[in-house]
Amino acid sequence: MSDLSVTVDTYLAGWNEVDAERRAGIVERVWAANGRLTDPPLEATGREEISQMAATLQSQFPGHRFIRVSGIDEHHHHFRFAWEFVAADGSVALSGLDVGELAEDGSIARITGFFGALPSNDAA
Amino acid sequence: MSDLSVTVDTYLAGWNEVDAERRAGIVERVWAANGRLTDPPLEATGREEISQMAATLQSQFPGHRFIRVSGIDEHHHHFRFAWEFVAADGSVALSGLDVGELAEDGSIARITGFFGALPSNDAA
Repeated sequence: MSDLSVTVDTYLAGWNEVDAERRAGIVERVWAANGRLTDPPLEATGREEISQMAATLQSQFPGHRFIRVSGIDEHHHHFRFAWEFVAADGSVALSGLDVGELAEDGSIARITGFFGALPSNDAA
Repeated sequence: MSDLSVTVDTYLAGWNEVDAERRAGIVERVWAANGRLTDPPLEATGREEISQMAATLQSQFPGHRFIRVSGIDEHHHHFRFAWEFVAADGSVALSGLDVGELAEDGSIARITGFFGALPSNDAA
């Protein structure tokens, strides 16, 4: 696994970690101090807000986990990968794409999430 | 069409405009002054570099044009859409995804392009 895939999979592990202290440690390890996480329902800036955002999602979807379902496409410290948000019974509650940028030190500076498939072209 | 679809389609028109002066006008209209464009082969910061990047691509692929082939998925001033880069004979030379962020005034602050489909998951 590349450094980036370790970083991305650790980032996803942060979403999945229900123990607040362990989650804070994971977030500290992969996110830049001023990292920015922007998802359709919520946004967070900085490690404390990012960790809190995971706690909020966990409270709404108990037992669900994020898994990476694509390779990671990277250039110029920018990257994208697909994920699924899976219930305890294995059903997929949501799928999406995360697009991110690394800081100079390899920590995550920004992630923007998009949910579902791209909309069809309605501007014909 | 929404304001954002006008902005995105004008941005693509900038890639396609071969007249340097008209292209500079388009870039001025849609891009923030310090806008950043990051594609797999090239990156550019600021309007002059962005316009030059389009000229470079045009010189390598005469007669090709970008067209938008999806709707635009937007939240929190972040957006994504799919495009194709099409030769004069209609054949698709390249397809990809652009992910961007708007500045407060609605101009484009950043666009990151990704080429082709997502890689398959090699980390099983």
